[in-house]
Amino acid sequence: MSERYEDSRLYRIRHSTAHILAEAMLERIPEAKIAIGPPIEDGFYYDFDLPRPLTEEDLQWIENRMKAIMRENHPYTVRDVTPDEARAYFKDQPYKLELIDDLQNGRVDDNGNRIAEPADRMTFWTQDTFTDLCRGPHVENTNQINPDAISITYKMPAGAYWRGDEKRQQLTRVYGTAFETPEDLKDYLFRLEEAKRRDHRLVGERLGLFTFSQIVGKGLPLWKPAGATLRDTLERWLRDVQIDNGYEPVVTPHIGNIELYKTSGHYPYYKDSQYAPIDVDDEQFLLKPMNCPHHIMIYKSEMRSYRDLPVRYAEFGTVYRYEQSGELHGLTRVRGFTVDDAHLFVTPEQLLEEFKDVVRLIQYVFNTLGLTDFRARVGIRDPQSDKYVGEDAAWEQATAAIIQACQDMDLPHTVEEGEAAFYGPKLDFIFRDALKRNWQLGTVQVDYNLPARFELEYVAADGSRQRPIMIHRAPFGSLERFVGILIEHFDGAFPAWLSPVQALLIPITDRHVPYAEEVAAKLKAAGIRSEIDDSKNRMQAKIAAARERSIPWLLVMGDRDQAAGAVSVRLRTDEDLGQMPLDDFIALAQRVINDKAIELG
Amino acid sequence: MSERYEDSRLYRIRHSTAHILAEAMLERIPEAKIAIGPPIEDGFYYDFDLPRPLTEEDLQWIENRMKAIMRENHPYTVRDVTPDEARAYFKDQPYKLELIDDLQNGRVDDNGNRIAEPADRMTFWTQDTFTDLCRGPHVENTNQINPDAISITYKMPAGAYWRGDEKRQQLTRVYGTAFETPEDLKDYLFRLEEAKRRDHRLVGERLGLFTFSQIVGKGLPLWKPAGATLRDTLERWLRDVQIDNGYEPVVTPHIGNIELYKTSGHYPYYKDSQYAPIDVDDEQFLLKPMNCPHHIMIYKSEMRSYRDLPVRYAEFGTVYRYEQSGELHGLTRVRGFTVDDAHLFVTPEQLLEEFKDVVRLIQYVFNTLGLTDFRARVGIRDPQSDKYVGEDAAWEQATAAIIQACQDMDLPHTVEEGEAAFYGPKLDFIFRDALKRNWQLGTVQVDYNLPARFELEYVAADGSRQRPIMIHRAPFGSLERFVGILIEHFDGAFPAWLSPVQALLIPITDRHVPYAEEVAAKLKAAGIRSEIDDSKNRMQAKIAAARERSIPWLLVMGDRDQAAGAVSVRLRTDEDLGQMPLDDFIALAQRVINDKAIELG
Repeated sequence: MSERYEDSRLYRIRHSTAHILAEAMLERIPEAKIAIGPPIEDGFYYDFDLPRPLTEEDLQWIENRMKAIMRENHPYTVRDVTPDEARAYFKDQPYKLELIDDLQNGRVDDNGNRIAEPADRMTFWTQDTFTDLCRGPHVENTNQINPDAISITYKMPAGAYWRGDEKRQQLTRVYGTAFETPEDLKDYLFRLEEAKRRDHRLVGERLGLFTFSQIVGKGLPLWKPAGATLRDTLERWLRDVQIDNGYEPVVTPHIGNIELYKTSGHYPYYKDSQYAPIDVDDEQFLLKPMNCPHHIMIYKSEMRSYRDLPVRYAEFGTVYRYEQSGELHGLTRVRGFTVDDAHLFVTPEQLLEEFKDVVRLIQYVFNTLGLTDFRARVGIRDPQSDKYVGEDAAWEQATAAIIQACQDMDLPHTVEEGEAAFYGPKLDFIFRDALKRNWQLGTVQVDYNLPARFELEYVAADGSRQRPIMIHRAPFGSLERFVGILIEHFDGAFPAWLSPVQALLIPITDRHVPYAEEVAAKLKAAGIRSEIDDSKNRMQAKIAAARERSIPWLLVMGDRDQAAGAVSVRLRTDEDLGQMPLDDFIALAQRVINDKAIELG
Repeated sequence: MSERYEDSRLYRIRHSTAHILAEAMLERIPEAKIAIGPPIEDGFYYDFDLPRPLTEEDLQWIENRMKAIMRENHPYTVRDVTPDEARAYFKDQPYKLELIDDLQNGRVDDNGNRIAEPADRMTFWTQDTFTDLCRGPHVENTNQINPDAISITYKMPAGAYWRGDEKRQQLTRVYGTAFETPEDLKDYLFRLEEAKRRDHRLVGERLGLFTFSQIVGKGLPLWKPAGATLRDTLERWLRDVQIDNGYEPVVTPHIGNIELYKTSGHYPYYKDSQYAPIDVDDEQFLLKPMNCPHHIMIYKSEMRSYRDLPVRYAEFGTVYRYEQSGELHGLTRVRGFTVDDAHLFVTPEQLLEEFKDVVRLIQYVFNTLGLTDFRARVGIRDPQSDKYVGEDAAWEQATAAIIQACQDMDLPHTVEEGEAAFYGPKLDFIFRDALKRNWQLGTVQVDYNLPARFELEYVAADGSRQRPIMIHRAPFGSLERFVGILIEHFDGAFPAWLSPVQALLIPITDRHVPYAEEVAAKLKAAGIRSEIDDSKNRMQAKIAAARERSIPWLLVMGDRDQAAGAVSVRLRTDEDLGQMPLDDFIALAQRVINDKAIELG
């Protein structure tokens, strides 16, 4: 198991820096009321109730003052206090007073479940002049934070509600970040800028991959030819890989009677993330939010024997889920998406090996795509929550099987509570992209519950009726989101086999267009997707336009090329491979494409 | 143009036989009231109001009496009568009296449009003792009908409402058929039986192609692995053919804002065949009944130049239409189906050639599938109906272009009123299957209207904004229905390239299973789909089971095969090709599959 972020030194640095931010803020604006200041993925924030809006000058002053505090070598000290002592100290800080009351009384969640025991002691952490109500831990001294490795001005302050409740006070959230070294900070700020530049919505527009139309509907992507080519190429490849691995294709409709989802438990439990039912005669149908119940009905359409198992059904199934329009974001947060879904129906004896094969297939898929920086997370139940269905024994068996498989395969993994599906535990693959951002991709789930709810059976060797176990899995997860991630990871410069246009043919003058057409025909016959730029633009402009579109190979052709039956090859990286016989280029391109290579030359 | 059925001798024979049926009925049941008796595809019927149910004996007696009347050599004679003379003759026949009134007054349809002019003369046709109110034409003499080529007992009488109005009298419809020769009748009756045996619902079950689930929903097929393999193979092939022909793939969602369909005119016009709208926030969405508006929005997402046209967008787009549950029928009448849709956006100069290319591609597709017996039908507006949208000039241009293309291509075609789409005229391909049944398949439509309704534009060479013309086309039409037709046409014995399992491997004993597995691996590497029957059944039972599933090649393997690295090959037609080296079989199978051949050997 790898170290959790919460246990890391970086986490303590960020938490400690948040306290320094609050100290500096109180110096700048003494009337400020302080709320909370936790570390988050890439940094920290602190929420304040301020008498006036913050200015650029405020932020710059605060950041400078924070750096000064760090250089002043203040130790972090901790002490126990009673609730009354805490209240006395924070008598002018209403948000802290509310937190102190809550800690003393113990907290309950919206369902009335206690999520913290009443406390008669709490802790204060102090550095320099500032004390916060806080569990810690922190670094030992402010000098352990590198003043050149922090920043609060990378992101404009934003609004936030006290306790996330939009009926309560609106606060000003100041974001900051801190790293161990200035290089790490610089790298992070660069990656932030780069992420803006690589935003898949911008790159998707530049490459003509997809579009949205308000009149079709928000969050419903329309895939243009280039994007559909990329998507179809991915889909066709994964289809073939799956068939090679013993999966069988199935195709099911995009709607299903609501009874199906009542049986599965998706309705009314996930009602808020589903589209409203459609009335048909005296029945109600849902746009399917999941493919599983449909695949289950195919399993159930025949009597199964242990000899038929495992049954592995795969479908690129498009599902629809309601998201609030404010939550929608390009391809990565949509209302309709295609899951590279498969459901395996296995005997208990087959579970462990089948699970491992599923994990191996996902590893193969990611590695082939060049997505090598991924880790595994075992998502188990949050023991405090009541949102899960099924018997405890089934949960325990399923969880044990997943952890066993990880251990057998030496798969580095973390175990995280509350990350399970509502019907069973799961293994998620978390991919770290070129900008070091984490994305949850493929998922594998072990499920004893749906087979019970749908009363699935097979005839065992001894003639008895037994219940199969289901494995749900999707390497990409959502094809839309996956393509969005690929776009940002590769900055639109996809491996050649995925590139919508693989070669751009640039005739130097109109005279060379017939030769370009001849070359295009040969490339097509060789399975290479090409396009001719026969516009009136100058050659340099054509090359620039092709690089803008991240087309892997630019083939320039003039008199000498034509006479030699050759092409002059330039890569999108601007590397110039010079003139080569057309057949040599075709051999090169076919090798790169067939190998699914990342390199082009 | 080919001869219309309505102008054929067979049509007159059937019409004349219907009159003889009525004559015989009045002899058998003199109290019978006669309604109407038209020829239909494959035969004729006559509707009667009878004082009692018909028995088998009645039908046998009537059929025998009809044959006797034919042998009695009665001429068919025609005479003009006034409405009053007609009423006097039919004073005891209330249905005829109503028809006479209608003819005299002229008919209007439900929208108040006159569909026939008032008539002051009408015609009586008489043979032997029977006279009918009828426009004719008929044969000259009953002896021109071969008594051995008619049958009324092939189909049980059915109920029908007078004038198709369920509020009016229920009548007894007696069906019959007549051919020119006894061989034709025999052939027809055989094909009828064969059609029952080949019913795609039965064959689909036998081959494990698809299933339906009441809990998923009526009319929503679930494609099992064998069916999904067949379907995916067809789809992948057509995708490739389309890309070769300059089509570009697009992918669009299965829902769309209702405004899209108001703009296109599909809503509320086709409201009754659409699913009810889905409420999302303050918008309404429809399950898409058509793909065209979605493709239009992709066209509209960019400014187009004449240099970009033609734009050809293709998508296997699944659409949903409401059908009454009583109308549903296996795969051929469903509520959700996938259209192999494409929309071409062309300039007026490109229309004719693009239209012809579309027709050529459809011809290529059908011919490759071995569906060679097809004809073309030009569907134009019904001049009496008001259900069409758009300018007359556009309709005329589009109709002229289609007819011009047919003439240029020497494509035999009929022109039929009332068969147009609501937005434009179309060319349909009518396929005659192995049982001589007609199925409407591929369709090509020329459309000036949607481009106007959506205000589509392109920039012409002179810089002006011009409106493109759309061509809608779908070779298969509905993939579901097309597969249903293929199943019945081929009786489940698909060409090898489409067969879900291409080779069944039959090890003679358990001892030969490892060799069979070795063969299976080699077949898989060679792209041949195979399955091993390692059940405990005897070899003859395994062969019978494989033939039941119409698997093209059965490879039996015993000691001698294994020793020789060979397989013993038997075709599903039961032809025995004997032992051959495995490599020879692989070469044979690959050739048959790659050629998309119908023959297997």
